[in-house]
Amino acid sequence: MPVPPPPPLASPLWRSLRSYQIFGANTEVGKTVFSTLLCKAAARRSPGGVAFLKPVSTGPDSEADDRHISKFASDVSNKTLFQYKIPVSPHIAARVSNTTIPSNDTLLFQCRDYAAQCANIGRKWLFVETAGGVHSPGPSGTTQADLYAPLRLPVVLVGDSRLGGISQTISAFESLRMRGYDVESVVLFKEDKYQNFSYLSEYFAEHHNVPVAGVIEPPERKSNLEEDVRAMSQYYEEQSQDGNTTNVISHLDSRHEERIASLNSMATEALQNIWYPFAQHSLFTGPKDINVIDSAHGDYFQTLAPSSSSQTDSLLRASFDGSASWWTQGLGHANPKLTLAAAYAAGRYGHVMFAGGIHRPAAELSSRLLKGMNSPRLNRVFFSDNGSTGIEVALKMGLRAAKLRYGWAAEEKLGVVGLKGSYHGDTIGAMDCSEPSGYNEKVEWYDGKGHWFDYPTVLCVGGKWRVNVPEELRQALGEDADFGSLSEIFDVRGREEKGHHLRYEAFIRETLERLQKQGRRFGSVIIEPVVLGAGGMALVDPLFQRALVNVVRKSPDLFRKPNAPIEESPSSPTAWTGLPIIFDEVFTGLYRLGRFTSSSFLETYADISVHAKLLTGGLVPLCTTLASEDIFETFNSPDKTDALLHGHSYTAHPVGCQVAVESVKELQRMDTSGSWNWAKSQGWTTPEASSSASGQPAVDIWSTWPRNLVEDLSRQTDRVAGIWALGSVLAIHVKDAAGSTGYFSDAAQSLRDGLIAGDAEGVNGSWNVHCRVLGNVLYLMASQKTTEESVAQISLLLRKGLNA
Amino acid sequence: MPVPPPPPLASPLWRSLRSYQIFGANTEVGKTVFSTLLCKAAARRSPGGVAFLKPVSTGPDSEADDRHISKFASDVSNKTLFQYKIPVSPHIAARVSNTTIPSNDTLLFQCRDYAAQCANIGRKWLFVETAGGVHSPGPSGTTQADLYAPLRLPVVLVGDSRLGGISQTISAFESLRMRGYDVESVVLFKEDKYQNFSYLSEYFAEHHNVPVAGVIEPPERKSNLEEDVRAMSQYYEEQSQDGNTTNVISHLDSRHEERIASLNSMATEALQNIWYPFAQHSLFTGPKDINVIDSAHGDYFQTLAPSSSSQTDSLLRASFDGSASWWTQGLGHANPKLTLAAAYAAGRYGHVMFAGGIHRPAAELSSRLLKGMNSPRLNRVFFSDNGSTGIEVALKMGLRAAKLRYGWAAEEKLGVVGLKGSYHGDTIGAMDCSEPSGYNEKVEWYDGKGHWFDYPTVLCVGGKWRVNVPEELRQALGEDADFGSLSEIFDVRGREEKGHHLRYEAFIRETLERLQKQGRRFGSVIIEPVVLGAGGMALVDPLFQRALVNVVRKSPDLFRKPNAPIEESPSSPTAWTGLPIIFDEVFTGLYRLGRFTSSSFLETYADISVHAKLLTGGLVPLCTTLASEDIFETFNSPDKTDALLHGHSYTAHPVGCQVAVESVKELQRMDTSGSWNWAKSQGWTTPEASSSASGQPAVDIWSTWPRNLVEDLSRQTDRVAGIWALGSVLAIHVKDAAGSTGYFSDAAQSLRDGLIAGDAEGVNGSWNVHCRVLGNVLYLMASQKTTEESVAQISLLLRKGLNA
Repeated sequence: MPVPPPPPLASPLWRSLRSYQIFGANTEVGKTVFSTLLCKAAARRSPGGVAFLKPVSTGPDSEADDRHISKFASDVSNKTLFQYKIPVSPHIAARVSNTTIPSNDTLLFQCRDYAAQCANIGRKWLFVETAGGVHSPGPSGTTQADLYAPLRLPVVLVGDSRLGGISQTISAFESLRMRGYDVESVVLFKEDKYQNFSYLSEYFAEHHNVPVAGVIEPPERKSNLEEDVRAMSQYYEEQSQDGNTTNVISHLDSRHEERIASLNSMATEALQNIWYPFAQHSLFTGPKDINVIDSAHGDYFQTLAPSSSSQTDSLLRASFDGSASWWTQGLGHANPKLTLAAAYAAGRYGHVMFAGGIHRPAAELSSRLLKGMNSPRLNRVFFSDNGSTGIEVALKMGLRAAKLRYGWAAEEKLGVVGLKGSYHGDTIGAMDCSEPSGYNEKVEWYDGKGHWFDYPTVLCVGGKWRVNVPEELRQALGEDADFGSLSEIFDVRGREEKGHHLRYEAFIRETLERLQKQGRRFGSVIIEPVVLGAGGMALVDPLFQRALVNVVRKSPDLFRKPNAPIEESPSSPTAWTGLPIIFDEVFTGLYRLGRFTSSSFLETYADISVHAKLLTGGLVPLCTTLASEDIFETFNSPDKTDALLHGHSYTAHPVGCQVAVESVKELQRMDTSGSWNWAKSQGWTTPEASSSASGQPAVDIWSTWPRNLVEDLSRQTDRVAGIWALGSVLAIHVKDAAGSTGYFSDAAQSLRDGLIAGDAEGVNGSWNVHCRVLGNVLYLMASQKTTEESVAQISLLLRKGLNA
Repeated sequence: MPVPPPPPLASPLWRSLRSYQIFGANTEVGKTVFSTLLCKAAARRSPGGVAFLKPVSTGPDSEADDRHISKFASDVSNKTLFQYKIPVSPHIAARVSNTTIPSNDTLLFQCRDYAAQCANIGRKWLFVETAGGVHSPGPSGTTQADLYAPLRLPVVLVGDSRLGGISQTISAFESLRMRGYDVESVVLFKEDKYQNFSYLSEYFAEHHNVPVAGVIEPPERKSNLEEDVRAMSQYYEEQSQDGNTTNVISHLDSRHEERIASLNSMATEALQNIWYPFAQHSLFTGPKDINVIDSAHGDYFQTLAPSSSSQTDSLLRASFDGSASWWTQGLGHANPKLTLAAAYAAGRYGHVMFAGGIHRPAAELSSRLLKGMNSPRLNRVFFSDNGSTGIEVALKMGLRAAKLRYGWAAEEKLGVVGLKGSYHGDTIGAMDCSEPSGYNEKVEWYDGKGHWFDYPTVLCVGGKWRVNVPEELRQALGEDADFGSLSEIFDVRGREEKGHHLRYEAFIRETLERLQKQGRRFGSVIIEPVVLGAGGMALVDPLFQRALVNVVRKSPDLFRKPNAPIEESPSSPTAWTGLPIIFDEVFTGLYRLGRFTSSSFLETYADISVHAKLLTGGLVPLCTTLASEDIFETFNSPDKTDALLHGHSYTAHPVGCQVAVESVKELQRMDTSGSWNWAKSQGWTTPEASSSASGQPAVDIWSTWPRNLVEDLSRQTDRVAGIWALGSVLAIHVKDAAGSTGYFSDAAQSLRDGLIAGDAEGVNGSWNVHCRVLGNVLYLMASQKTTEESVAQISLLLRKGLNA
């Protein structure tokens, strides 16, 4: 087995150690003077308990900040991690130094190590001083504000007291704040001419509730070195005892306590105040069951670690966001590009009225989505707030279109044609698209309307890729069939050439005929292409879904009124026939399964298509329902009341649209630039499919999760019923001794418990995997930015959990 | 009539004039050198067509930037608006200058005037140079980035080439970007030691797609003045012809064209790609019916003005956001506090999984809301995305509670008790809470379940405040009654002392008894306290709603099964009795009507309460459904399937929660600090109520809209059926000759057309009022930040429109 990569980084936080990062509003603003003052003032309260860390220093040794600290605060332990002699920005100094340039991870891990050492030996304070301004680049070239964000140390910002310093200080503050830093204190020199201190004290009090401390400037440099040292010593002695400085230390001390108190009380408070979604509260045994999230970065939450009595245990640990935060996450938590997109739209518009209006972000998003779908059918965008509302919109569209074409009476309740186990959302209209189940049976106004087909599923079982036919359907559809790879199963055109679809189509047509005879009326087809998410992470044989769409489209006779005259055929070749086909791509679309649209797996196009979740990369709610022109035309009439009467207040809110533009653009960029080649080469893109009997070219199917992991785990047949991976999703169907399946089964819990326990012995703090189960299915969902290293770490935990 | 205040500011944009604002990453970065270079380069393309504006300048005249421009770019017209001699920040210089400090508005209007003059005389280019860094304070003390935001001139950012300059340039860019500025170009000196140009070119290309231009540094200052001038002249001559500079000018020229092209094409594109909410597309006559929004600030959109052939007409005009962007807007568009709150949460978390998790913004918002409601009943918060989903959650809560207490069977469909014309949202569950109407009659799955009471309404008619009893109810409730003021009508306790409620209660009880005998079953009461919004802006007699709640609460006998044993009384005095009472405060709550909660007008408390729209101050979608502990307990059981099975992916998204914390805090601050005293004193807070016969103290009822405006308009009885104002809402019920009323009436259109036409002759560009009608009702909704001046301007238009 290969050597595991280093575990993810836990943000440094210990009860006993007050750690602060010192950022400067600019270079030459006195960071080192303030560091020295704060170290000295802290050391007065905690003699021998103060440490100072300079991760990266540039300039000659004689002028290094650690020397300055040693000289004037001799009882403070101090350390520099990387020292470069040339007095330029670290990214240049590192490049010309002829030494290995430390990666961002190296820097972060070493900072954390040093903090951990400080905590272990009982230090009380740690000040970590950055170099230059907040956005001065670190050795790798990443600016420090981005580089150090995963540590999320609270900040002391040294303001600029010179001409122009007001601007520098506020901008630096904003750059930090928008990266989630808590700036706890602003300090700067008091100076009479520009009076920056006076302005900034008021400004920060009014706008940000952050205290600003002013300290008198150090004495002018003396030409005589000894005199100079004496003068500075005196300055430090006096100023470190001055109220201006000691108040800062007291404030930082309280803020540290408050941060920890808040982390510790939040779960209890939540259990008192919050009503959790999809949660049986009586099953919470106490605050420990609540995941307290301090922050999140990339794929990892920083969560409150299980409580420990030891002062030297880190309070936070890294938790892989294994549900992709309920399937929304794509571009990493706290992605600065998305943050700035949100801030830009907020600053340019706030929210603006969309009814009868247009703004750039909505216009751009609409055309980008329509173009990305590359569908001859879809050319209209309707905005709403989430998948559930988007489905309600789709339903209003589809049902009206069918009702008008077939001339159903107003009181006729048309049903949908769907698949068993499908789930489309929590509002009543969306719920009514699903068959009765544990999700809805106790919901008072639920009233499912439709027919839901059972279907063959795809699983890797005992190392083999298999299309599983449910017992009841074997007579109609035949036995289970094994394939050499997932690609072969997804080669729907190749399989059609072999006639695999004929039994599917016959079965579907016969069923619909029978229902028609029973007097059932239908108004739309609604399916989640390829994967049924909330219904239990079922990977449906794509050929079956394709067959369903094809049968419906060529069979208007199944849906018109008995003995009705044949309605006129739509003139456009892209108009809907049979029934409007709604694809719910809320979960499956926008690269979750590796492609822009999951409809492409079925090699067909929807008449109405719903997109949410990944649409904003995982930042804010937004949904779009795309529709074809002929569906749209159904609502066009001289009569106002024929309009689609739907519209939420924040329809097409600019923040969501701008973030979505940024997200979709970035996902498309990653796609075309080969960002996922590492994943595709994990056994997924093989010559198998192309050399298959069908003679078709390889079908592009791939996953973030390695093929050999999937196949190895599938061989643990005593516990694993089957497993599949596609795009960033991995779903392990666990065998349940009690035979219970579905959402309310407990079968996958023990596997989940192992992931939640995680690796408690991690070198850089413990870490774990936060994940969710759907009954007997444990799934893991990576983001579209997840790294090969993270996948390798989690794979090890999974193999351990299943002894594979 | 008083002199009208100056009209609102239209952002300066003319087809013929390329206006750019020059911001500096810091002071002393060469802004004036770059201004001169850009002016000269532009003047080469358009001789005599370039202007330069320095709004505020500090320092001795001899060093003023306009002198520099005159000296080195003599064919450029240039102007300084405010010159202060002391070389310090303008806010200090202005304060010590012994002259009137220009307000932000004065500065903005003068900038716009100058730009308008430039456009009128055919100038092609205008460069507006700021002072110091982006956040250096202007004369009033507001930082320039905030001060100039309403102009939203595109920006040339002069970067900093010195040590630390990378950081300064990026932070300055971010501060501008988050205020909605489009930074079109970054320019800075090329310098070898720090190589900022090289870093920043790559950085801005990768992160922001903004070109960075590097220009060689000017020659060192010469001691001989003449030589100095000669050297500089030569530098300018050479560099203004150099490709580095001319490329900037070409780029700015194209960006100007692109901005205008985008504004001009957006409406056409929208009509092709967008499916609008609540819109009959066939009634759009063309692109001119689409409101093209370039940006928004405070209460005003900047919209594309009706097209004109003249090159000298401004392309943008200010439009008062008279629907408060579909009732969401409270704290002004592009409020920097809300922007920074959104950015902070995005940078700290992105979105994080809320099922079983907690984060600071959600925790803080929950406790702030519960505390703000100050209700003995509400102590749980459930999060969703918008009012409609929040209502579905409330329904699931209320109906389940009633079903369990009264032991109704699963298949029994319980209805709601509501009011005629109420509207609770667009999803099917929310729609089913409303009686059949034009809003839902063509929606296929709509199936209204309930009984909807008719009720007395409140209107000012012919100058009198009247409770209007519908014809059909007069026998039961008595005749219309006039009151001296709105306060008196809202004095529900006082009116109860007089027995006004007795007929209401008797009528309600008798109706419910009758329905019970008919076999009707009910599961919840759901009402919008005081104002029915989408149902036509009806102000309901609060005493009637209070009576409804009181009757239901004291009459469990009306809701239990026939002959059922009397169920145990709830042990808690705050538990629900009769039926759970749901208050839909989505529109009416959080200060829209002047108070934190609109339930306080009824002097009662809900068991379930829904809050959205103003919750985030008007920025992003978020909803909370608050519930009482005993409603919550209904769902507690050892059985997972008894849980409230509802939860959207972005449940309690941190961006929304953080923005909501900031918004609610700010609204509460405004409330307690008397920010609305100017509005209250517009005739609303009078001694009338306190000296009324009831002897009660004055009931605190007030509106942003002056009482005399309301009363004057109400006297136009030929056109006005009645009018009311409360909080920031003004509703004018227009008489419809054809007798048509309701959502699909056209009666209010002509009044609306007058507001939309607005004031085309405005000195500072034309402006208008963007507003919506609900059938025969024209309403205007101000934000909670709307100024007395804006109200005065709009009042004039209203009086003109109604000849009042």
